[in-house]
Amino acid sequence: MESAIDTHLTCPRTLSRRVPDDYQPPFPMWVARADASLQQVVMAYLGVQYDDEARRGDALAALRTIVGTFDAEDGPVHHDLTHHVDNRDHHNLMVVAYWADPAAYGRWLRSDEVAGWWESDERLHDGLGHFREVVAPRVDQFETLYAFQEQLPGVGAVMGGISGDINEHGYWGSMRERFPISQTDWMQPNGALSVVEGDPAKGGRVVVRGHDNIALIRSGQEWIEAGEEERSLYLDEILPTLEAGMDFLRDNGEAVGCYSNRFVRSIDLDGNELDESYNIGHWSSLDKLERWAESHPTHLRIFTTFFRVAEGLDKLRLYHEVSVSSGSEQLFEYVNCHPGTGMLRDARVGSHA
Amino acid sequence: MESAIDTHLTCPRTLSRRVPDDYQPPFPMWVARADASLQQVVMAYLGVQYDDEARRGDALAALRTIVGTFDAEDGPVHHDLTHHVDNRDHHNLMVVAYWADPAAYGRWLRSDEVAGWWESDERLHDGLGHFREVVAPRVDQFETLYAFQEQLPGVGAVMGGISGDINEHGYWGSMRERFPISQTDWMQPNGALSVVEGDPAKGGRVVVRGHDNIALIRSGQEWIEAGEEERSLYLDEILPTLEAGMDFLRDNGEAVGCYSNRFVRSIDLDGNELDESYNIGHWSSLDKLERWAESHPTHLRIFTTFFRVAEGLDKLRLYHEVSVSSGSEQLFEYVNCHPGTGMLRDARVGSHA
Repeated sequence: MESAIDTHLTCPRTLSRRVPDDYQPPFPMWVARADASLQQVVMAYLGVQYDDEARRGDALAALRTIVGTFDAEDGPVHHDLTHHVDNRDHHNLMVVAYWADPAAYGRWLRSDEVAGWWESDERLHDGLGHFREVVAPRVDQFETLYAFQEQLPGVGAVMGGISGDINEHGYWGSMRERFPISQTDWMQPNGALSVVEGDPAKGGRVVVRGHDNIALIRSGQEWIEAGEEERSLYLDEILPTLEAGMDFLRDNGEAVGCYSNRFVRSIDLDGNELDESYNIGHWSSLDKLERWAESHPTHLRIFTTFFRVAEGLDKLRLYHEVSVSSGSEQLFEYVNCHPGTGMLRDARVGSHA
Repeated sequence: MESAIDTHLTCPRTLSRRVPDDYQPPFPMWVARADASLQQVVMAYLGVQYDDEARRGDALAALRTIVGTFDAEDGPVHHDLTHHVDNRDHHNLMVVAYWADPAAYGRWLRSDEVAGWWESDERLHDGLGHFREVVAPRVDQFETLYAFQEQLPGVGAVMGGISGDINEHGYWGSMRERFPISQTDWMQPNGALSVVEGDPAKGGRVVVRGHDNIALIRSGQEWIEAGEEERSLYLDEILPTLEAGMDFLRDNGEAVGCYSNRFVRSIDLDGNELDESYNIGHWSSLDKLERWAESHPTHLRIFTTFFRVAEGLDKLRLYHEVSVSSGSEQLFEYVNCHPGTGMLRDARVGSHA
């Protein structure tokens, strides 16, 4: 049994844990491990939006253009692709890309290929919406949790290693306690979302400024290798409740502190669906995410189902990664997206306009 | 908004809360308040057990005998009566009595009337089982929580006052944080139950030694004043789930750290049922109680139902009180009770025999 907090990230606590030192989790879970040289990662969610099925080909082409830029020297270490339909019946293709080196990300972002494409007037006139939602948490600002130990998805693929059984799971508050920074910091927000360029109601280019400690959760399910019993467990038992909870957050998030919630299906470069999905949630604080997770009936049902089956899981892969980030390490940019997209919905339009 | 921890019980923290300072609970709840002169209370659960309905009259007479001793100068401040059938089909009548002064309790316990009755050989031969389960928590060792503000039951009746809206509720961990001692102490157990006199398997007189920080929860429901809608809410929605959870703890408690669990119905001195009930749970630690409450499907369902209806509650009264106590401030004594009674089930029979 080891701590979810890697030894080189341990420091004298000013904030205590919730559970006593002899706490024993009810089943094993694991976290991703990285070399001590890893300082900060970049998680870039890059999206293409369209409301007309006829635009699907264009949108997929745009997605492939983005992925094409990843081949450059400064490209990301890892990426994957998804599709989802949002609550305004718009389709969204997204690629999430992970960098282990913020400087490389910066060079990629500023490269002629990437910056030129994004800044081109074509983006305003290609009949598609485009968005980039990027956060760059330091290693003490994120945590992971896996019910399996191999071929880690998401940020785990960047980190490259896996822990032994970890102690901090199986109780409410354990997510927070897996963050190294929770040893000394409450991860409190210092403001609200604000529009600093453009006007979401008018479309065109819009930039949103975030704030310290926006929380981002990616919570995933992979049933591609699952046998009949586990597929049924996922598709018949877990999925309906999961969808109810994720739809609630998508449609009622503002009241509970959830800025944006997207339950997405993994796809390949041609848009074919894979047997993998995940949820992407942005929250005004980790605290708000905790409150919802521990008190909403849909999430509690997911939680108790997982508790019941966790020990018997074989090929069904369940995991999550949660980060907070500094306001200065966030980028939220939109081109011709509907005003309910991502951070746009809850961002205050300020005096800049 | 005020803290559940009364001002005179506040001290510099060595253990932090789970939630940030700006936490706002989703609906109002209250705790009992007492004068600063209150130092320690005594909670005495005094029981009579019988397995044959024909013994009911004798058992009620024994209960009345106990209650009769309360008229003495050193009697308790408050008491109430209950009946329940346990999982060995034995009937149990209990009176719980509360003292605000442990010295008065001591004098009552040692009085000829009480000690003479308990120690008499008649207790071994009156065809009834008898037990006394007594804990004496200091004021920093217990907490309360009420969804109402008047005529507090249980220890609240001893304390006599009520707080304003309190902050520490609505999240897992708030029960612990309402304990004043949680500011500096984990409330960890220091041992296990052991039989120090007699043999539960043989009946007769048995004494069990407890240990530091056994947790005792009384969790109550009063629907006597409830209108039709709230009666239905309680009887049709809450009660079935509550019974499932309480039966689970009664029958499977040992695996989760619950020494004893009794879901009891309030009665009058003649044994007539009242529209009030409560659960009495003894746990090896507060920690174990927390784990069960926050992860067991039955309790989560109770919790989400309460969240849903809390703000609309009118005459349905829901409350709890939870204490821990030092091993030296506990008394667990049994006469001719079956070996599954109270602390007997999980107490190790030591070398004393």
